[in-house]
Amino acid sequence: MIDYKLLDALATVIETGGFERAGVVLGLSQSAISQRIRTLEIRIGQPVLLRSPVPRATPAGQRLLNHVQQVQLLERDLAKSLPSLPEPTARLRIALNADSLATWWASAIGEFCRGEALLLDMVIEDQDIALRRMREGDVVACLCSNSQPVPGARCVPLGKMSYLPLATPSYKAQHFSQGFNEQSLQSAPAIVFGPNDQLQHRFLAQSGYHGAFPYHLCPSSEGFVKLALAGMGYGMIPEIQAKPDIEAGRLISIAPGQSLEVTLYWHFWRHSGGVIERLTAALKAARS
Amino acid sequence: MIDYKLLDALATVIETGGFERAGVVLGLSQSAISQRIRTLEIRIGQPVLLRSPVPRATPAGQRLLNHVQQVQLLERDLAKSLPSLPEPTARLRIALNADSLATWWASAIGEFCRGEALLLDMVIEDQDIALRRMREGDVVACLCSNSQPVPGARCVPLGKMSYLPLATPSYKAQHFSQGFNEQSLQSAPAIVFGPNDQLQHRFLAQSGYHGAFPYHLCPSSEGFVKLALAGMGYGMIPEIQAKPDIEAGRLISIAPGQSLEVTLYWHFWRHSGGVIERLTAALKAARS
Repeated sequence: MIDYKLLDALATVIETGGFERAGVVLGLSQSAISQRIRTLEIRIGQPVLLRSPVPRATPAGQRLLNHVQQVQLLERDLAKSLPSLPEPTARLRIALNADSLATWWASAIGEFCRGEALLLDMVIEDQDIALRRMREGDVVACLCSNSQPVPGARCVPLGKMSYLPLATPSYKAQHFSQGFNEQSLQSAPAIVFGPNDQLQHRFLAQSGYHGAFPYHLCPSSEGFVKLALAGMGYGMIPEIQAKPDIEAGRLISIAPGQSLEVTLYWHFWRHSGGVIERLTAALKAARS
Repeated sequence: MIDYKLLDALATVIETGGFERAGVVLGLSQSAISQRIRTLEIRIGQPVLLRSPVPRATPAGQRLLNHVQQVQLLERDLAKSLPSLPEPTARLRIALNADSLATWWASAIGEFCRGEALLLDMVIEDQDIALRRMREGDVVACLCSNSQPVPGARCVPLGKMSYLPLATPSYKAQHFSQGFNEQSLQSAPAIVFGPNDQLQHRFLAQSGYHGAFPYHLCPSSEGFVKLALAGMGYGMIPEIQAKPDIEAGRLISIAPGQSLEVTLYWHFWRHSGGVIERLTAALKAARS
């Protein structure tokens, strides 16, 4: 079998972000950690870590990390049927979209994670990259708007998120005084989450506008709302996130009655053990 | 001189995330865009784009993009002194920490950006990576807690952020009933922003605790607060962000009277033109 103390050293270096800190966690010296990583690299015949500026896994290291994670999940299931075993502290790595994480995610999974004493390692990724990380085994599950399952994985729908095109009343008065039309859209600054965020483009296409428009890029859900509140632009904001600001009149729709509906899908490996199945059931219950 | 229509094609492909969309923006066919990129690559003798899954700049492409950005900034200044020129829509790429973007950033720069019709491209990065991107010329400014200026750049302090160790009252009752001590910290799940987030470690070290602790990883400021509110862990949250939840009694400190103070520094290139100088002045005024 693989020498798991070497893999544990690798996983701890990545988790803690350094050899010294990994040593503290594992009760080893920094040089003992280095030695374990070197031994691992000699055994598999290639580097597992890029050393600078912070340690990062190479593609080979990433595969080892994913294997450790899968083994930890199986150990969790084992500990349930053999209560004399100490419960391992697996951390489940899940890719998800920023807007879910900023809104409904915590309340949907909070009780489940508390009950199972489950730790999560959440990563925010564009859905194409998230699904690739899923295929590569880097994450055990992925929440995104792509309905196409990864081979070997399952995919279940988890309800919709409704997005509204929101801005402050004074922004709307300044930039959309002539209405929500081509001329306004050409010059009114929008806020877009990132270069791969297609919500804005999809919304405008749905409204019949296919031209260019000026925009800020803001890869933070909360920052996004704050920019809108500061009158810097209009943006597609989840209705559940903007609710208090809409009710207080701080944000209004620049195109009343229009919205963009995004269906979310939960992708997960079929054979990741019971915890993923139970988490999936908890998510389905929370979103139904 | 460089053929700027080729660089403009490159910048637009990266900004819009695709050849077809770049074509729409520039009023060209997709194949015309491809042709410009190929011509550019032939001229500089190496690839400027990685094509899949979404177009990304190679290191050489990145340098060209940075150059375009600097030229656009200079064009802005020129347009101010030659009002007959159309104002170019430069987008200022700035790296900053997630907590600033989620809290005070928008209100500090909103009025300035509206007044100058300035568009921002904000990127969230760990400070080591942010400063490296600054050195490589990929961003024109960087907001982080590192006080060491990059050669050729200036660095000014921008006040402090105060972080408190917060959790729900029921979480505190469950995990810290015996007080804020070593035994509690060993088993109470924390929430950490990412593998390179040192706030939690620094806070615990400041309190005299150097051991391991279980934690969730959550790379979203708002998701972080939501996880704490769902009772999944305690975490270092900016006081300004948690204020409503503290006042409503939803979050309380697990170590009353203790906090972590982080000084923020604004790094910017000396010769990026007037807009950066004016933005710096606006930031200093807002944070003083």
